[in-house]
Amino acid sequence: MPDAPNTPETADPPDASLDAVKALVFDVFGTVVDWRGSVIREGEALGRRLGLAVDWERFADEWRRVGYRDAIARVRRGDLPWMNADALHRRQLDAQLQAYGIAGLAEAEIDHFNRVWHRLDPWPDSVPGLTRLRHRFVLSPLSNGSFALLTNMAKRAAIPWDCILSTELVRAYKPDAAAYAMAHTLLNLAPHEVMLVAAHAGDLRAARACGLRTGYVPRPLEHGPGGPQEPEPDAAFDVVATDFEALAGRLGT
Amino acid sequence: MPDAPNTPETADPPDASLDAVKALVFDVFGTVVDWRGSVIREGEALGRRLGLAVDWERFADEWRRVGYRDAIARVRRGDLPWMNADALHRRQLDAQLQAYGIAGLAEAEIDHFNRVWHRLDPWPDSVPGLTRLRHRFVLSPLSNGSFALLTNMAKRAAIPWDCILSTELVRAYKPDAAAYAMAHTLLNLAPHEVMLVAAHAGDLRAARACGLRTGYVPRPLEHGPGGPQEPEPDAAFDVVATDFEALAGRLGT
Repeated sequence: MPDAPNTPETADPPDASLDAVKALVFDVFGTVVDWRGSVIREGEALGRRLGLAVDWERFADEWRRVGYRDAIARVRRGDLPWMNADALHRRQLDAQLQAYGIAGLAEAEIDHFNRVWHRLDPWPDSVPGLTRLRHRFVLSPLSNGSFALLTNMAKRAAIPWDCILSTELVRAYKPDAAAYAMAHTLLNLAPHEVMLVAAHAGDLRAARACGLRTGYVPRPLEHGPGGPQEPEPDAAFDVVATDFEALAGRLGT
Repeated sequence: MPDAPNTPETADPPDASLDAVKALVFDVFGTVVDWRGSVIREGEALGRRLGLAVDWERFADEWRRVGYRDAIARVRRGDLPWMNADALHRRQLDAQLQAYGIAGLAEAEIDHFNRVWHRLDPWPDSVPGLTRLRHRFVLSPLSNGSFALLTNMAKRAAIPWDCILSTELVRAYKPDAAAYAMAHTLLNLAPHEVMLVAAHAGDLRAARACGLRTGYVPRPLEHGPGGPQEPEPDAAFDVVATDFEALAGRLGT
């Protein structure tokens, strides 16, 4: 049981009960980066170049929902063989190119567009907050994105990870327990020495069930202005913060 | 076959035939860091504190030779069950503490000393050279060191890796082919788009057999002044450089 109940955010003092935490691992899509805004932006640029009238907001939302979220659920149920996130994204992209009447792209162009998920932009507070946090903690993504995706994304956006933890390393997908266990096992830490930071309550609940500490950073714009919102934080989450700068303050960095 | 035969080192022009290389992966112990000097230094400090007369050069060399090199060979032969480098190091440390008559250390002190391998210092040219190379290439260790060891070492010494590739991820040890295949598979690259950089000819030969490009950076002081030397470079190695700064020059960064 966490000994630091969810309390209102304050600038200080830092939460001493979290002193045992040595590593912070982060959900990435939505939590660290604005996947929706980034995909829409590249889609619009592609549309202008090809002279297409496509609803790129709908295109991005469908790609994410059907091609990633639902597809991961199918892999976890055994309805699809295991494949990494790049392969899942490509599967859905091929279907949507046809459904949206986008024709004439060369294979290299389709592959490039599929890798838009490697080129997502961080939220404005992400890199400044992580830069503060890295003085005290080992920082890593803990994401269902592929290993190459997470590596390329960090290099492009200068995200200061200390290592890359992709669930591809254990051929599992969050919220499988194997995904969370990988984090503390590879870092040679106890579960309570690792905190998952995420914008998604379900991810945090699964991490907590595996013994990890939990940091909730809601991202109200993940699904766009007026988009669906995550639920109120569980009372059991260890830290709730409005962004990564606030999280750094709460954790004493 | 490499199309860039081993040629004398020159400041420029960069070797155009290596244009396909997108990632550089590095052997670590001996190639990036001075394991011997670092272990001796911490050993001497421990000896002073405990008032011990121990030959720390011999201690370090034996720990490395028996506890790591020979032990990895035994794991690869199946004479020892798979365990990561920290466990191999600890196994030998326990034996040597007894053999050298070093008694009275608390468990936490032994564990700390075992992690001296997480606190190795880079050669003076390593971080400056990598800092140049990272503008053009994805950089990663490709080491038999444990994932936590490589992560902690990089954080302490500010080694600018983009990700951490430990052979622990595939429960293999170099020179097993699985170790080299992991590198290009996880980075989603073809074998010839990845170059192994190492101070050890045997490592490079095994990488080359798996299709990787090869960069040889001899480290004549790895085993101390007057210590044993690696053989002359194979004619088949793609690049030979005296240090990481020279390697950066050869690769056009």
